[in-house]
Amino acid sequence: MKKLADINNDFAQWYQDILTEAELVDQSPVKGCFVLRPYAYSIWENIQKILDKKIKQTGTQNAYFPLLIPESFLKKEAKHVQGFSPELAVVTHAGGNKLEEPLVIRPTSETMIYYMFSRWIKSWRDLPLKINQWANVVRWEMRTRPFLRTTEFLWQEGHTAHVSQQEAIEFAQSILNLYKDFVENYLAIPVIAGKKSDSERFAGADITMTIEGLMQDGKALQLCTSHVLAHSFSNAFEIQFQDKDNNLSSPYCTSWGATTRLIGALIMSHGDQNGLIMPPKIAPIQVVIVPIYKTEEDKNIVLLKASEIAKKLENKNISVLLDSDDQETPGAKFFKWEIKGVPVRLEIGPKDIQNNQVVLVNRLEQDKAKKKTFVSIDNLEKEVENLLENIQQELFKQAKNRLEKNINKAEKLVDFVKNLEDKNGAYKVGWCGSSECEAKLKEHKASIRCLLDTKENKACFFCSKSSTTDIIVAKAY
Amino acid sequence: MKKLADINNDFAQWYQDILTEAELVDQSPVKGCFVLRPYAYSIWENIQKILDKKIKQTGTQNAYFPLLIPESFLKKEAKHVQGFSPELAVVTHAGGNKLEEPLVIRPTSETMIYYMFSRWIKSWRDLPLKINQWANVVRWEMRTRPFLRTTEFLWQEGHTAHVSQQEAIEFAQSILNLYKDFVENYLAIPVIAGKKSDSERFAGADITMTIEGLMQDGKALQLCTSHVLAHSFSNAFEIQFQDKDNNLSSPYCTSWGATTRLIGALIMSHGDQNGLIMPPKIAPIQVVIVPIYKTEEDKNIVLLKASEIAKKLENKNISVLLDSDDQETPGAKFFKWEIKGVPVRLEIGPKDIQNNQVVLVNRLEQDKAKKKTFVSIDNLEKEVENLLENIQQELFKQAKNRLEKNINKAEKLVDFVKNLEDKNGAYKVGWCGSSECEAKLKEHKASIRCLLDTKENKACFFCSKSSTTDIIVAKAY
Repeated sequence: MKKLADINNDFAQWYQDILTEAELVDQSPVKGCFVLRPYAYSIWENIQKILDKKIKQTGTQNAYFPLLIPESFLKKEAKHVQGFSPELAVVTHAGGNKLEEPLVIRPTSETMIYYMFSRWIKSWRDLPLKINQWANVVRWEMRTRPFLRTTEFLWQEGHTAHVSQQEAIEFAQSILNLYKDFVENYLAIPVIAGKKSDSERFAGADITMTIEGLMQDGKALQLCTSHVLAHSFSNAFEIQFQDKDNNLSSPYCTSWGATTRLIGALIMSHGDQNGLIMPPKIAPIQVVIVPIYKTEEDKNIVLLKASEIAKKLENKNISVLLDSDDQETPGAKFFKWEIKGVPVRLEIGPKDIQNNQVVLVNRLEQDKAKKKTFVSIDNLEKEVENLLENIQQELFKQAKNRLEKNINKAEKLVDFVKNLEDKNGAYKVGWCGSSECEAKLKEHKASIRCLLDTKENKACFFCSKSSTTDIIVAKAY
Repeated sequence: MKKLADINNDFAQWYQDILTEAELVDQSPVKGCFVLRPYAYSIWENIQKILDKKIKQTGTQNAYFPLLIPESFLKKEAKHVQGFSPELAVVTHAGGNKLEEPLVIRPTSETMIYYMFSRWIKSWRDLPLKINQWANVVRWEMRTRPFLRTTEFLWQEGHTAHVSQQEAIEFAQSILNLYKDFVENYLAIPVIAGKKSDSERFAGADITMTIEGLMQDGKALQLCTSHVLAHSFSNAFEIQFQDKDNNLSSPYCTSWGATTRLIGALIMSHGDQNGLIMPPKIAPIQVVIVPIYKTEEDKNIVLLKASEIAKKLENKNISVLLDSDDQETPGAKFFKWEIKGVPVRLEIGPKDIQNNQVVLVNRLEQDKAKKKTFVSIDNLEKEVENLLENIQQELFKQAKNRLEKNINKAEKLVDFVKNLEDKNGAYKVGWCGSSECEAKLKEHKASIRCLLDTKENKACFFCSKSSTTDIIVAKAY
């Protein structure tokens, strides 16, 4: 294993190093497609498990729709095809023959799913219809980076249809709240929530709501989005229902998604010079037990006790790995599990057993004196539960402090542009609402991350007009 | 809703009717690709949950590999490309440009995964390497039928590498046992296990082991397979490791899979004239509660009690749906949930509440007198648990009886060919091992489903040579 690049001086290289050293991803032979190795995939499984339960609690049901979509379907919604056509992977041949109509690999499934909705929705009794799909999608991206922007990625995409626009907007908002709750309380990443500007909206949406995180290098990362599609797709696919007054109506639709990008957010939000730090609530391994011994006799005693402890903790639903590998030294194991960000390390040796104690090591604590604590085996479960809970809270608190410190108040672009270019960070400014002023940000590789509900700034960050809304400006991944 | 076709006279149409009426699948705009509607997908989720746990218990880890594979990769293993090239869907254009090398959508992932294995396996310490993937695959099939043979389907594919051939064979066998246990004890489908003949082997395998079920129309269905690949892919992808004696060696590989076809097997194994019958251990809904009332006053009393009961049962980990839909009559609900195969229906009305009882209705029981039982609310949980357990056992027993009755002893093809053609069924015969004799079966649309360990028959079913092994002959899906 090699040392990670300096997190403060070369964040991009540090990120690349982590991906390899923590065995998260590997390059595949296809450009921009990465293999999710078992450790990364188990993080995704945990994300899925929690998010899936929350999604089902909204009355949404899972289903599965085809990977391949007729090319003509994409063209039915004008903005949608404009947004996605540069990114499509196209199947032209199959079963040894040229296809009559090319098929595209889904970049997202609005067209397929709303086509199916048109077969299923006949009456107001069929509404709301709430469907979710866990699937892979393909977008042919020019520049890729594991988790953040990849040619193929995994996600969930929710699609719903409602009787009224009001209901659709409320539902899309409730899903954004669901995402915010999940990202803050499980991934321990504080977010800024708001609407996207017209130019940053999803292709085909009336409203795009977003939650944005701020990574340790001060760049923003769009984490999850929830769209009010209103009538765009229900018109394109002729979804109609008989309303309570026996009139034909079009339903109002929403779509929303969360992707494997969340794993990238975890890395960039919580990692440190020693590697990942996994929030306990999402960690594939919450406690790693490293047995320490020299003689064969001690080995037997220590391993026996260590397995006992592992079982005790597992009975409390704590995810434990007892690393009894004979080929590695304890030091090498410490190093390995630190890189993988296991929140708690439990060390146990013959002397500890004599003293009826173990050592707990807190992955997050930087202060050497506080990092290690001796804990009696008798109340070990409680101590471990408390430590996991503390790490979860502390991780969020640290990230929250960083976020707040990094949201800079500013007025005019000229005043903050140097800071923005040199140090990144987020800037809370006013905006007149014009796309001309918005476009100025592109010249500095920044963008409007979201519109806020507040109106603290009087004037637009660029022109002399008065501000209609506060916005968050930042460079973004 | 329409009546299902006669299960005895038109099994194929009955199957099609069930797919629609039980809201399992719907036709998509892409030929051979079907939408898994929520009810079917929830069956798949239950299959995944149980199978995934069992697979992880073998020390196998989940990962995720790219959907798209360079066309040249398929060509590296001669038999593999021969087997799969007629079925490939090919991406020739992406991101608006023609690709330098076409990419195929994975029909299975041996080539991609063993290429990655060659990057990860360096020493005997890296072995065994056991990886599983839950994914979608595409095979361009000429004739498709939902669940049984579809252009895109969902599956898990396991891939392992071992130090010795012996270990690989034993592991592949243990996975076949795992599948057999799952299919018999959860899906309640009894199976015949054995090896495939050379002509029926997976393209690139040394040994293919299979479990075969026999559907209600007497046709066989291959349910799950486990392959010993030995050196085919490790040679093609140059996987090499340093063994304990510091020599370079090639690992022995296995691959194995279970697909959404299992849902088709459930339907065709257990359905009856009234619809599906879901084995309780895999049923998305184990108990449906149908409240029965006439007045508004009764409605409140009945719904309150029904929710209490639902909570009680849910606390015992029983999956319950309280169908409180006001738009439908109880009779329409009975019909709907019977078609969907919910194993237990619980009816409750004002009189039942006065008598502190409910009615339990057994979906499987055909005898009208035995179908319904009155049960005291006081020991309801226990009664429901027992009934679910009984249905699970009885369903397997019935299917097992049918299987045994349908395995006919026979000697010469001429003697059983008429029965085979008219009534399907399985025939246990001897075989000399020659592909010429095997080919005779194709003339009658039958095939060798598997080779057995026994040698009860003296002579080959076709030629005059002596038999080397017993085989099962049947027509198959």
